[in-house]
Amino acid sequence: MTTDNPRLCRTFQTAPAAVPRENTAKYLDSGLSATGFEKPDWLVPDIEDGTAPDMKAEALDNVVERLPESDFVGEIWPRVEWSYDDERFRDRGEEQIHTLVREVGEFVDGVVVPKVGRLEDVQRAEAVISEAEREYGYPEGSVGLSVIVESGRAVSDLREIARWGGESRLHGLVFGPVDYTAELGGRELGGAGPTWESLLWRLSNEASANGLVALGGPFDQLFGERGGVRFYNGDAYADQVEREARVGLDGSWSLHPKQTAQANRLHMPSVEELERDIRRIEAFQEAKGSGTGAVTVDGQMVDEATFKTFANTVRTARAIDAAAPEQAADVYGETLLGRTRAVDTDW
Amino acid sequence: MTTDNPRLCRTFQTAPAAVPRENTAKYLDSGLSATGFEKPDWLVPDIEDGTAPDMKAEALDNVVERLPESDFVGEIWPRVEWSYDDERFRDRGEEQIHTLVREVGEFVDGVVVPKVGRLEDVQRAEAVISEAEREYGYPEGSVGLSVIVESGRAVSDLREIARWGGESRLHGLVFGPVDYTAELGGRELGGAGPTWESLLWRLSNEASANGLVALGGPFDQLFGERGGVRFYNGDAYADQVEREARVGLDGSWSLHPKQTAQANRLHMPSVEELERDIRRIEAFQEAKGSGTGAVTVDGQMVDEATFKTFANTVRTARAIDAAAPEQAADVYGETLLGRTRAVDTDW
Amino acid sequence: MTTDNPRLCRTFQTAPAAVPRENTAKYLDSGLSATGFEKPDWLVPDIEDGTAPDMKAEALDNVVERLPESDFVGEIWPRVEWSYDDERFRDRGEEQIHTLVREVGEFVDGVVVPKVGRLEDVQRAEAVISEAEREYGYPEGSVGLSVIVESGRAVSDLREIARWGGESRLHGLVFGPVDYTAELGGRELGGAGPTWESLLWRLSNEASANGLVALGGPFDQLFGERGGVRFYNGDAYADQVEREARVGLDGSWSLHPKQTAQANRLHMPSVEELERDIRRIEAFQEAKGSGTGAVTVDGQMVDEATFKTFANTVRTARAIDAAAPEQAADVYGETLLGRTRAVDTDW
Repeated sequence: MTTDNPRLCRTFQTAPAAVPRENTAKYLDSGLSATGFEKPDWLVPDIEDGTAPDMKAEALDNVVERLPESDFVGEIWPRVEWSYDDERFRDRGEEQIHTLVREVGEFVDGVVVPKVGRLEDVQRAEAVISEAEREYGYPEGSVGLSVIVESGRAVSDLREIARWGGESRLHGLVFGPVDYTAELGGRELGGAGPTWESLLWRLSNEASANGLVALGGPFDQLFGERGGVRFYNGDAYADQVEREARVGLDGSWSLHPKQTAQANRLHMPSVEELERDIRRIEAFQEAKGSGTGAVTVDGQMVDEATFKTFANTVRTARAIDAAAPEQAADVYGETLLGRTRAVDTDW
Repeated sequence: MTTDNPRLCRTFQTAPAAVPRENTAKYLDSGLSATGFEKPDWLVPDIEDGTAPDMKAEALDNVVERLPESDFVGEIWPRVEWSYDDERFRDRGEEQIHTLVREVGEFVDGVVVPKVGRLEDVQRAEAVISEAEREYGYPEGSVGLSVIVESGRAVSDLREIARWGGESRLHGLVFGPVDYTAELGGRELGGAGPTWESLLWRLSNEASANGLVALGGPFDQLFGERGGVRFYNGDAYADQVEREARVGLDGSWSLHPKQTAQANRLHMPSVEELERDIRRIEAFQEAKGSGTGAVTVDGQMVDEATFKTFANTVRTARAIDAAAPEQAADVYGETLLGRTRAVDTDW
Repeated sequence: MTTDNPRLCRTFQTAPAAVPRENTAKYLDSGLSATGFEKPDWLVPDIEDGTAPDMKAEALDNVVERLPESDFVGEIWPRVEWSYDDERFRDRGEEQIHTLVREVGEFVDGVVVPKVGRLEDVQRAEAVISEAEREYGYPEGSVGLSVIVESGRAVSDLREIARWGGESRLHGLVFGPVDYTAELGGRELGGAGPTWESLLWRLSNEASANGLVALGGPFDQLFGERGGVRFYNGDAYADQVEREARVGLDGSWSLHPKQTAQANRLHMPSVEELERDIRRIEAFQEAKGSGTGAVTVDGQMVDEATFKTFANTVRTARAIDAAAPEQAADVYGETLLGRTRAVDTDW
């Protein structure tokens, strides 16, 4: 077991990089200046589906202008255009990637490429980034790649993509349910649509087996309405985030600061979880000193396997403490954070 | 996005090709002469498990005699004998395929091969059809192949079978739950048996990734009984069809004209769905003219991904209109059909 | 369809091979002397996570001493240490395997290797057993291998591991949910954790496709408590065993004689199932004599596929009768057992 902190991406917030408002960068500015729990771990300036066809150029300009001025402390991952079955989108994506690396390569952590197909298509996207890096003098691997898994082909090749990706600049596997459902011809019937739970499991497994991050898809029913009152759909979004967290997805997609605030918290260990797991580790370490291997803590046997789950809780809390200290302090308080930093998570 | 209509197989109705009645082709005749919603998209004269061992020869004769006389307008896909682990069944299947292609090759769209194993076994079945085509002078690929996925081996090789199949005469992947459950040793316990939902998802994904059709398995509890009254089990069958449609299966297996009528309708977009998606496309096309990319229709953002789901609805309705115009007219009426034919489904 | 009895492993009971008690082999002795329904099909003396780090040597000694003296009639599969990502555990596992084969090779059916990774790692474990066999003069393949599938890597390579395993000494695929959940970062939220149902399906499918045995993971909430009363958690365990049996897992993991007694019974066909399926086979065989193929028994069509499920019930009952005759006699009685032995399960 390593004691390194895990890579953190509780929230993958897309923000349209240009909208038809007076300030076309309104949502981008809002994401870049978010504070507290509304600050996403990854901010994704969206040049693809969130931006109107005739505003793509302005969207790219906005990203190029805003990033150098911003003091956003999380990761920045612009989403470009792409399509495994349409060369025009790939040509535009290639141009966008070149512009981003040339102009703001030092300010982006990587590029999000949507609508990828089989392994060969993902490698084609990787080659574009690699070429841009070389051309503009960045070290090999400094610009990362995350892909949106939203085609039958990408899912069919998921094992191969992830395995190759573990040795490459690939960082994240992100689910894209809307495109995916359309491709498979899935339908909403009797009030229920497909939930693709098996796919989320496979995404989580392949990410874990290859050191990648796995992320859930967007929840776009932002608002509900009953009895004539319109309200933020917080329950339904939280249910989705919890389903994703249960199977080990590292984070959730956000379309709105409120979603970001919810997902940031839900992908944090709760105070009770963190306290409990620290207590169990401490009890275990004490019992280990006295020489028994299968220690019972809280009526449950602790072996190396259960110990790992406790240690994971602590390591996630430490990663949050490092990347978003104000969020960690707000939820855990200094006493618990002190124990979090001090406890011995080695088996 | 292509504007071609998708291949249509809402219903895969098997009919025993010979039964011990005065007219041994009773069920075959009934299938061939079905009208309205009871007409299946694919009629499958069954020479395999639906026909008694001592009536196989007569079953084949019935198919050979009836097809040339029939004016059935859907597709015809006889099911022959086969088994990945029993040469005797494969020998009989080979003979049946040769007879079918030789005698009625111009009247069948393809052959359904059950109990296939790994990719090599599917290729062995394909080679038999290919040889028969050559021998009796049919163009390469004119006789299709669909396979019943009902062994652990076929499921293990599903990705490989489908990927190979996308380049071959393979058209359909059909689930066979009874044999499959027996092979895996699945059981009914506490009133519930296995539902194999993950397998249906994989079937849908691989079919979609390779341009094939994916179909659900038979529901053989045709009749229920409560309080001494026996009745057609329409609710339970509809539930199964809806589960299949949700994850993007193209159609369902039918054992009875009533099941065919239900599945034909449930795999059609409803009037509400079709109207709503046409309205959304029209609103989107209008908004696109005015230059915004992320248009909100019915409180939901419409991007290329959501647009595709609307377009799929329209394209399916068009395919039904082409293959079963009386069913389309009955459900949608001429006004809605007119809008269906006219709306611009290009992004 | 073969009429051979299936390999039997309804219960995989682990027993810590050394515990800090006066008799350090207390649980091992208890497992070896279990009778009636508390006798597991496979007893797994646990030298790995069930045994404290400082008692590993004593655990190995206990196994070496106890096995030759025991008259346990089921299979014996010690679990050794291993880890795909830690050489120290592999070195210890290698030593333990050598000691077991050298000292008690004739008394063990195989070795259980936990925490395996990709195919290459499983092959590495196999090579250790193979070498020990050669060195101590046992015939090739006489010492089996079962692996615990509990890493993202092993799940990613499951198809490849099982396919290779079908041609090797690999006998069993056992799920390890605690380690697996920790590796994937799965969490318990809103009172529910991940259930990994898709993984159980894949385990069952790959085992079936390659002639292996598939087994579920441990349920370690042995005891519950409500209203101040502590009680054996029999309902929750039975629910898990039933879920596993439904998707065709061959057996369940047991941590306690009561769990063994439950799983042994739940993985047996019930009296009602056995009687019903014998009756159906008998009715079918009679109808077959009279020449109809699609016979209806109990209002359900019987074809080769449904027939197989009936035959599986009978074959499992026969395997239990052979391996644990007192359990078979206790549940079925002599009359039903007589019919079980006599009925013709050939199609």
